[in-house]
This record gives sequence, structure tokens and C-alpha cells, in this order.
Amino acid sequence: MAPLGDGLDTAEEAIAGHLVKRPISTVVIIIAMQTEALPLVDKFQLVEDSDSPFPKGVPWVRYYGTYKELNINLIWPGKDLGLGVDSVGTISVSLVTYASICALQPDLIINAGTCGGFKAKGAGISDVFVASEVAFHDRRIPIPVFDMYGVGLRPTFPTPNLLKEINLKAGKLSTGDSLDMSPQDEASIIANDATVKDMEGAAVAYVADLLKVPAIFVKAVTDIVDGEKPTAEEFLQNLATVTSTLGQSIAQIIDFISGKCLPEL
Amino acid sequence: MAPLGDGLDTAEEAIAGHLVKRPISTVVIIIAMQTEALPLVDKFQLVEDSDSPFPKGVPWVRYYGTYKELNINLIWPGKDLGLGVDSVGTISVSLVTYASICALQPDLIINAGTCGGFKAKGAGISDVFVASEVAFHDRRIPIPVFDMYGVGLRPTFPTPNLLKEINLKAGKLSTGDSLDMSPQDEASIIANDATVKDMEGAAVAYVADLLKVPAIFVKAVTDIVDGEKPTAEEFLQNLATVTSTLGQSIAQIIDFISGKCLPEL
Repeated sequence: MAPLGDGLDTAEEAIAGHLVKRPISTVVIIIAMQTEALPLVDKFQLVEDSDSPFPKGVPWVRYYGTYKELNINLIWPGKDLGLGVDSVGTISVSLVTYASICALQPDLIINAGTCGGFKAKGAGISDVFVASEVAFHDRRIPIPVFDMYGVGLRPTFPTPNLLKEINLKAGKLSTGDSLDMSPQDEASIIANDATVKDMEGAAVAYVADLLKVPAIFVKAVTDIVDGEKPTAEEFLQNLATVTSTLGQSIAQIIDFISGKCLPEL
Repeated sequence: MAPLGDGLDTAEEAIAGHLVKRPISTVVIIIAMQTEALPLVDKFQLVEDSDSPFPKGVPWVRYYGTYKELNINLIWPGKDLGLGVDSVGTISVSLVTYASICALQPDLIINAGTCGGFKAKGAGISDVFVASEVAFHDRRIPIPVFDMYGVGLRPTFPTPNLLKEINLKAGKLSTGDSLDMSPQDEASIIANDATVKDMEGAAVAYVADLLKVPAIFVKAVTDIVDGEKPTAEEFLQNLATVTSTLGQSIAQIIDFISGKCLPEL
């Protein structure tokens, strides 16, 4: 058994390993839903890879292009082969994160998407957050140390200059595979001190940490979890508007990143 | 958007695609915990791969060997790099299933492990079940079609002859990332008509289906979920004994598989 740590060591090592003094060259943007992805495909004039680096038969889509000397790859897990809906959630996003890192060896991963926000923690509709840390809220394993593994708390790659420059909000992100929130989820989200919740972030962080690639998380609020309206209804109502806002923020982030080294973010 | 199906088409196609008339040659056994894996490493005299097909730095372990003309690979996701506990749960097992299929191109996947059983559905401690179908119980997405995606119901590769020969129980398996069971989990498990619950099965099935590899699920009961004792306590108490029983069942299954074609299982 490896020595017990605080769960943060590997992420820190990953960051240290990437603090090389050369401009960021290749970026992988991971987005779970087509509606969230298409504004960026347009903005950066990306094209779909007809000879994708992924195994034959999987629905995963790579859009790519060059923008201000950055190799941009936008990876979308595609539509479920059986049901035709976006392949949302932690399992699918873990697989595409893993396969993208193996195939494209990015300098930086950006996981972008929509999220639920807690107004009690200062979130409002259309706010765009950069996650300061990520954790899971639906992996309860009440055995010592396994409990911490389940929570999977990880710091994200620090971007103090980006936050100052672009005026995005910072907050903790909690991830689970349900769109709704059970009382048990809520207790874990409160324990995680989260301002926003999504269905992918902590999974992307797990894989990025495993393969030692720095990752940041940009999440735009489509619904207020502790508000009046049902989550699913509010989510669908705001999806188009909020993804447009998210697209603008990602475009600003890409502009900011261009020409910079990782420690300058 | 792809045409909507009943979620079973791709698995059926996968099975059809593999119904070739040649003996099974390569088997990948996926086991989440070291305690569950070691009896089989001993039994088949497997050796650890010092030049693993997985990326540098990941904790995933491949044990391999030849037994009665079968190439046996036992894949264990290893200990969490930060915390030192077994890398249990759906994300980790999805990644190793994906990487194992890509690297080893198995004819058949066997996901083996311990599980919780429901005595109301006929499960008892040390019973070994072969799952007839698998689904998730902690992915609630209350939007039409996304709800079915969340449940992720999949049939498993049918093994009527194996069930007859080895006298294992058949039952439905429900998967979630928590060891405990919230009221919401319980409602979903009942909706899934599950006799046993685990933390990996449906995730292995998702990846196997995606890459069109037949998969079977062999689960031994360590704790009675609808019984008197707390799950974590009962699980830890029975783990050693039950993994020994599980090892014997897997050995019988491997003996049965040896020399057979997939349609003969």
C-alpha cells in the first residue's frame, strides 16, 4: 500500500511537472453537450476530424483548428449510440479525457459546460465560474480513507492572472451523475463548500491528475439549485442563452492563453 | 440526432458481431480490489506485467498468463496514487476497461467482484451471481430520453450453458458509486428489479458495449443490503471468505470457457 497522502500531492506534482517556460501549444477543450460545443466550433472555425484519433465506432467527435498559434481541439463525447442523447456524465467524459490526452498530449485541458448554481453562495443565472477546486458529491464510501477517495477533492490548475484579466467568478465545483439533487447529494455538496454543481468536472480532474496534465474548469450557470424553479425546466429554458455566454468566456480565455506559458495563467 | 432505440440494439449487434465459430482465445478479467484479484493470480499462476500496455504513471496492473490455451489477463485498477486505497467505482473501472480492450482486444470480458445482495430477492452471503442485465441506480436525469441514458440498462452476454453447468445464480445487477444506499438509490434499485448491487458492473458494460466486446458479470455477495448489519461492517467482515468463494467460481468459469466458442457459453 502506498503511503497515505492528503490527496493533493499528485495534482501538485502534475502542475510542477508542467511549469516549463514555453508557450502553451496544444489545448484540449472538453464539452459534454453539442449545444455547448457548437458556438466554439463557429467562433474558432474548427473543423470536424474525419480521421479521428479515437477507436472506430465510438461517437466521440474531435473538432480542431489553429487560432493565434494555439492548436485547439474541442472534444465532444457525441450522441449515445443507442439513445441519441448527448453522452453526459462522469463515465463518458472520463473516457474522452483519457483518450484525448493519450492521442493529443495537450499542455492544458479546459473542461467547459453548464452547471447549477447556489444563490446562497452567490451564483446567478449566466454567471461564469472558474473552479478553484473540484470534488464528487455522489460517491459515499463510509470506510476510512475510501471516504476521501470517494469525495475525490482536487485543486485545479491555478489561474490568478486569468481571473483578474477576464473578471470571471471563482468558486468550488461539485460533480455528480444526477441532474437533480437528493438530500444526501445536498449534504455532500455543502460539505464540499460548492458554489456550483455539474455532471463532469471532478471526473475530468481525476483523469487529468492521473496523466499529469493541468486542467481548468469553466462552468456557466443555467439553473439555480436552491431557487424556486425545477432544475430540469430551468436548465432547458436557459441552455441556449447561457451556452452563448459560456462561448464568449471561453473565447476570452483562449485569447488570454495565447502566447503565454502555464505559470503566467 | 441518431434514431431513438430501446438501448439494447448496440449490445445485440456486439454480440452478433462476435458470434464467430472459433474458440475464445483472449479473456480480460476486470477486478476492482486487490483482495478480490489475488486468489485468481495464484490459481492461474499469473505474473505481473513489468512492461504494461498502459500509460506510464497510472497505477493499473496487468497480471497475465496462459491457462488451458486461454490467454488470461487480469486487470486491477491498482491503488489510488494519492490515497493508497483500491481505485474502486465506475470511473476508474471504465478507464481500465477501455484501455484493456484497446491494448489486448479480448474476445470476452469478465467483470468479477463482490456485491451487496437483497435477501428479499433471494440473495444470501457468499452467493455467486451471474448478472442477466445491468443498470445504474445513481444517475437520475429527469429529462425525456436522458432518463433512460442515465439508467443505462444493458443486457449482458447470454451464458445459458454456463449457468446450467456451474450452478451459479442469475439475477439483475444495479451499479452506483456509493457503498451505502440512499432512499433515491433504493427506489432506482427497485425500479431496476435488481437482486445485487455493486460499484462497477454497469460501467464495464457501457464501455464493453461501446467497443463491441461481449461481457459477463460475476458477483459474490459480501453483505445483505436489506439485512440487520451495517453494510460497511458486514462487507469488511466477509470480504476475505467471499473473495475466496468468488475465486473458485471464476476458476470454474474459466475451465468451462476453455476450448469453447462464444455461442456455446
